[in-house]
Amino acid sequence: MANIAKKVSWSGRGDDRGERTPLLNGDEEVKNNRQSLDYDNSENQLFLEEERRMSHMGFRCLEIRRWVICGLIGFLTGLIACMIDIAVEKLAGYKYFAVKQNIEKYTELGGLSISLILWAVLNSAFVMFGAIAVAFVEPIAAGSGIPQIKCFLNGVKIPRVVRLKTLVIKVFGVICSVAGGLAVGKEGPMIHSGAVMAAGVSQGRSTSLKKDFKIFEYFRRDTEKRDFVSAGAAAGVSAAFGAPVGGVLFSLEEGASFWNQLLTWRIFFASMVSTFTLNFFLSIYHGKPGELSSPGLINFGRFDTLNYFSFFPFHFPGGVLGALFNIINYWLTIFRIRYIHRPCLQVMEAMLVAAVTATVSFAMIYFSNDCQPLGQDKAEEYPLQLFCADGEYNSMATAFFNTPERSVRSLFHNPPGTYNPVTLGVFTLAYFFLAVWTYGLTVSAGVFIPSLLIGAAWGRLFGILLCIVLLTCAAAQLGGIVRMTLSLTVIMIEATGNVTYGFPIMLVLMTAKIVGDYFIEGLYDIHIKLQSVPFLHWDAPPTSHWLTAREVMSSPVTCFNRVEKVGRIVDVLSNTSTIHNGFPVVAHTRKICGLILRSQLIVLLKHKVFVERASSRLSQRKLQLKDFRDAYPRFPPIQSIHVSQDERECMMDLTEFMNPTPYTVPQETSLPRVFKLFRALGLRHLVVVDNENRVVGLVTRKDLARYHVGKDGLEELHLAQT
Amino acid sequence: MANIAKKVSWSGRGDDRGERTPLLNGDEEVKNNRQSLDYDNSENQLFLEEERRMSHMGFRCLEIRRWVICGLIGFLTGLIACMIDIAVEKLAGYKYFAVKQNIEKYTELGGLSISLILWAVLNSAFVMFGAIAVAFVEPIAAGSGIPQIKCFLNGVKIPRVVRLKTLVIKVFGVICSVAGGLAVGKEGPMIHSGAVMAAGVSQGRSTSLKKDFKIFEYFRRDTEKRDFVSAGAAAGVSAAFGAPVGGVLFSLEEGASFWNQLLTWRIFFASMVSTFTLNFFLSIYHGKPGELSSPGLINFGRFDTLNYFSFFPFHFPGGVLGALFNIINYWLTIFRIRYIHRPCLQVMEAMLVAAVTATVSFAMIYFSNDCQPLGQDKAEEYPLQLFCADGEYNSMATAFFNTPERSVRSLFHNPPGTYNPVTLGVFTLAYFFLAVWTYGLTVSAGVFIPSLLIGAAWGRLFGILLCIVLLTCAAAQLGGIVRMTLSLTVIMIEATGNVTYGFPIMLVLMTAKIVGDYFIEGLYDIHIKLQSVPFLHWDAPPTSHWLTAREVMSSPVTCFNRVEKVGRIVDVLSNTSTIHNGFPVVAHTRKICGLILRSQLIVLLKHKVFVERASSRLSQRKLQLKDFRDAYPRFPPIQSIHVSQDERECMMDLTEFMNPTPYTVPQETSLPRVFKLFRALGLRHLVVVDNENRVVGLVTRKDLARYHVGKDGLEELHLAQT
Repeated sequence: MANIAKKVSWSGRGDDRGERTPLLNGDEEVKNNRQSLDYDNSENQLFLEEERRMSHMGFRCLEIRRWVICGLIGFLTGLIACMIDIAVEKLAGYKYFAVKQNIEKYTELGGLSISLILWAVLNSAFVMFGAIAVAFVEPIAAGSGIPQIKCFLNGVKIPRVVRLKTLVIKVFGVICSVAGGLAVGKEGPMIHSGAVMAAGVSQGRSTSLKKDFKIFEYFRRDTEKRDFVSAGAAAGVSAAFGAPVGGVLFSLEEGASFWNQLLTWRIFFASMVSTFTLNFFLSIYHGKPGELSSPGLINFGRFDTLNYFSFFPFHFPGGVLGALFNIINYWLTIFRIRYIHRPCLQVMEAMLVAAVTATVSFAMIYFSNDCQPLGQDKAEEYPLQLFCADGEYNSMATAFFNTPERSVRSLFHNPPGTYNPVTLGVFTLAYFFLAVWTYGLTVSAGVFIPSLLIGAAWGRLFGILLCIVLLTCAAAQLGGIVRMTLSLTVIMIEATGNVTYGFPIMLVLMTAKIVGDYFIEGLYDIHIKLQSVPFLHWDAPPTSHWLTAREVMSSPVTCFNRVEKVGRIVDVLSNTSTIHNGFPVVAHTRKICGLILRSQLIVLLKHKVFVERASSRLSQRKLQLKDFRDAYPRFPPIQSIHVSQDERECMMDLTEFMNPTPYTVPQETSLPRVFKLFRALGLRHLVVVDNENRVVGLVTRKDLARYHVGKDGLEELHLAQT
Repeated sequence: MANIAKKVSWSGRGDDRGERTPLLNGDEEVKNNRQSLDYDNSENQLFLEEERRMSHMGFRCLEIRRWVICGLIGFLTGLIACMIDIAVEKLAGYKYFAVKQNIEKYTELGGLSISLILWAVLNSAFVMFGAIAVAFVEPIAAGSGIPQIKCFLNGVKIPRVVRLKTLVIKVFGVICSVAGGLAVGKEGPMIHSGAVMAAGVSQGRSTSLKKDFKIFEYFRRDTEKRDFVSAGAAAGVSAAFGAPVGGVLFSLEEGASFWNQLLTWRIFFASMVSTFTLNFFLSIYHGKPGELSSPGLINFGRFDTLNYFSFFPFHFPGGVLGALFNIINYWLTIFRIRYIHRPCLQVMEAMLVAAVTATVSFAMIYFSNDCQPLGQDKAEEYPLQLFCADGEYNSMATAFFNTPERSVRSLFHNPPGTYNPVTLGVFTLAYFFLAVWTYGLTVSAGVFIPSLLIGAAWGRLFGILLCIVLLTCAAAQLGGIVRMTLSLTVIMIEATGNVTYGFPIMLVLMTAKIVGDYFIEGLYDIHIKLQSVPFLHWDAPPTSHWLTAREVMSSPVTCFNRVEKVGRIVDVLSNTSTIHNGFPVVAHTRKICGLILRSQLIVLLKHKVFVERASSRLSQRKLQLKDFRDAYPRFPPIQSIHVSQDERECMMDLTEFMNPTPYTVPQETSLPRVFKLFRALGLRHLVVVDNENRVVGLVTRKDLARYHVGKDGLEELHLAQT
């Protein structure tokens, strides 16, 4: 029956299979390393023994240690956010100060083109440093990092995504790109930074620094690590937007399968600590140590009370413009994958964008003449007089002669009549294309702030002046691009600090999602798909009950016997054509009696735990869970383990090390049931058995990620064979 | 090995087994009806056929209908909240107005005891009506309803808890008890009301009204109903506290097992609609239709900005006092179960409490003499002059001559020096005991507001004047009593409208929980345990990996054959000594091939779906899922189905109706794995098989709810055999 499901290529666009090829070829090495996380605990005898040795107090200590780690994650994430904020403010401050003085000088003298060149060069220089670091040192640090973290929380292990080096480059990169005046925000990378921090702190060691602190060794396995990374991502959101609840919901939305009360509470704790740390240090930096008034990197200012205009569908274009953004960015990304994959080309592109951004901003400033008297309530930081009369300043120019975040705030709050409609229109259009062009550059950058800026700009352009309605326009634009719903609503509520805005924001985001989904998927999903990641959605497609495990599973399955010849194990593991990570262990007649992972086998081979040796070396220390933890997460490849010809003839007893009760399903189980089991328990392998309990197949993430609801019902995707 | 687990009685208090007996006897009928909800979908052939008939569009329509229902739930819950608010305000207004005039009259004349009598009589009258309705018409409407909703969301079906009659009595009851001046809040019952509303609306019919609207028939099964009840509970929280996110988290905390993105989003929608509806109608009622300023029933007013005092452990007594509250209330509840189980006694007790509350308040007012000049910023609603000079009013008296909610606000915000420490001390003590006494009365009542009031009162007493610190004291008291953490933090953040308060509130609630848990459990958990509900916590105890399914399961299991004799089915179902609700269906040699529910068998018997009749009545319409849905949720008892002696000899083919792929586990599976599977998938029955796939046991909720971490490790509880 499986042939009823239409086999289509992955984006429903028909002609992209050829286009994906260069990506696959250029990136083959990365792909083959892309594995799943194992959220299911292997309850083998070693585990049970360790647990039996542990007292009740021991479990309490573990729990306390988890809390301490979460507190640390929050604290350090808050610190990083604070550092980024201060660095950006300082650098951008110097830049705008220099350019402002230059402009003022040349406004009178004439020859403003010198100012333009100064500005463009400064921007390009900043961006160049950032792009070089990303392109040459750690390419995974490009972009906002949200797609990568989504994948990680979904259970896909992406190499190098949570390394310390990535963190350093990310932080450096985002400071450079924001200071370099690109149409980017500094909030997206915070989420990635928080996640890296979490992965590092919770493991108590850094492989990049080759330093093992010998603490938190208990947490060296996928289950625990993923829990902490959830907390880190939440702490990142929390610091970025001052939205601790939004952070928790982001982590849950992207990562949680099974709702775990204590875990959620710990995630919340990390979020709270993170926003508080940021708030605390920023208040000291701003010289007002008592006033905790900046819970996040973003501050939208105060809004007026809700009124019924907020429910008016002003925000309808959000979904359409968001989809347009995504479509253009999709084609651009395809183009980049094909033609701009050399690091130096990538750096040059980034510098070009920086120069163009400076030029566009300059043109905007030059041609606008919205003069406003100086000395209003909201003191602008770098008021530009330009061709205005003395005692006045050019409001349009001033609004955009600043970081995108502050421009958003000006757009929301500046009084009616501040902007000339024509300049505003040109600006909206130019900024839209700049933002599209910028996302996907080889720099660390977030897309939230530019999206909000575009939304607020077209809101103003439509003649909307109430700042709460402008907020919904901005939210619509952002929602149309990223298509997050639940967590984004809460983030916006918390960032604006008023619950009553929740309802219009929610309606806006829903509309934007429905309208946008009609055209194309969300920006992050596009980028995830372009990487051919086997991403699992929340539910199996609703019409797939007639598909059974038999049709979905991979078969035949390589199985091992309880006591298996070492030679066979080495051969199977070395087979590069079929890289399997989990192997059912069977008794006679292929009856299932356990499941063993590649990583476990490799540790066993490394320690030469062979039946023949057990008797000869009685004094030899028994293998413990610690040995598996020490090897985690970078288990050596099979090629590095030397097994002599004699040893190949030895036998290995897997009984003690395999998971003796893996989850199994009968062949008749429907796809939704398999999916639910897989998702709810965070499985990596699900063994399919016949009614004699004999192994007939194995379901992995890739088998499930294939099915998908398209416009005409169930579709089967061609995922890259990774 | 199971005998290692200490067998202790359920509360760890040793001597309560005797005490529980009267409860069991008096309530036997209710207990036997207490079943589990079935969150797992029975994917039998009827289901698959129905799905195959449904187009992709059909699924979209279903999804839209779900959204419409959630919108309706939110709207109606908001309306109810609005109604309760207005009714309470009106009634309490009349009462206080009458009493105030009386007091003013007799202050001059002398003979204030007449005022006291008037007040006490008015209070008792209100409470009498409420208590009569609850005690004689619908006892399940007593209390806040939160324990019942917790159980329902946990998967325990409590009879009559989501009926329309319960809703009517609940709403009437809560209006009476708040207007009757009891130490209660109106927010707890809102959660129950929302849940009832959801259950009613989503089923498209009311059994109480004997009306079937023939809509939403698809949603007549446990899975869908529980989802909607989650949304209703969230909408209730949202309307009560103006906390839509808190509502969502409350539902998740109590109910969710598997995190479902779309469901959460719908729950959020219901919450948002609910708070908005309340806000909208209240703004119209208050004559300011544009100002949406009352998102919830509770309004704490504005707080000053956070400062470091909020982190000082002022709030430490919260946990201890909360535990004291719970301990006294526990003994009181035991006493009530033993001696006050006749409805008229219950009504009299409620009236007594009302009279005592009036007397205490009166004494407080009479003996206090904190005179303050009239005409401050915060105009009190019923200023009492009493023995103060003209142009002054008695502030202490005024603060408590009002509903508890307004008293809390006065305590938070009144300026320093408003209250005399001695009167405040007496008040705190008196109110504490009144609140303890009140919770558990046969009236509809919430415990949130009284808890906050106690907390704010002792905060003031300790000389704390900063309202933000008072808020943390109040939160500590509440946290010490109810021990909610995640959702309560978010509720408090949203109710106060400032994210920065989140961190101190979180720390306070954590401390209160840790301190309180040292003494006794949370109030709701105590009441749930006193009902012997098999409540499942979030995780299996951490030290229970060595317990396996073999020790946990019930066995032997009553199984049916694929084609079974009607006589045997009727006998098994009629056996009152072992009321089972699910039966494995087996092939020869007890090999598992499906699972069938009692409810399904009853529908089959009712429609006489016998093999012998199938051939003779070809024209007879085939049984459809609709027949099962029509019978849902009150399936007739087996006694009401007449099966003749001839029919007993017929055979019934269960193949088409059973769930062909029930989840199974091998006997060696550890308790945590069984638990996780059970909880994550919301199962009601989990079949345990040997390695030949033969049925050896069945795990149900009660088998799992027995295990529990006590102070010295794993304990096994004696749950009532229900």
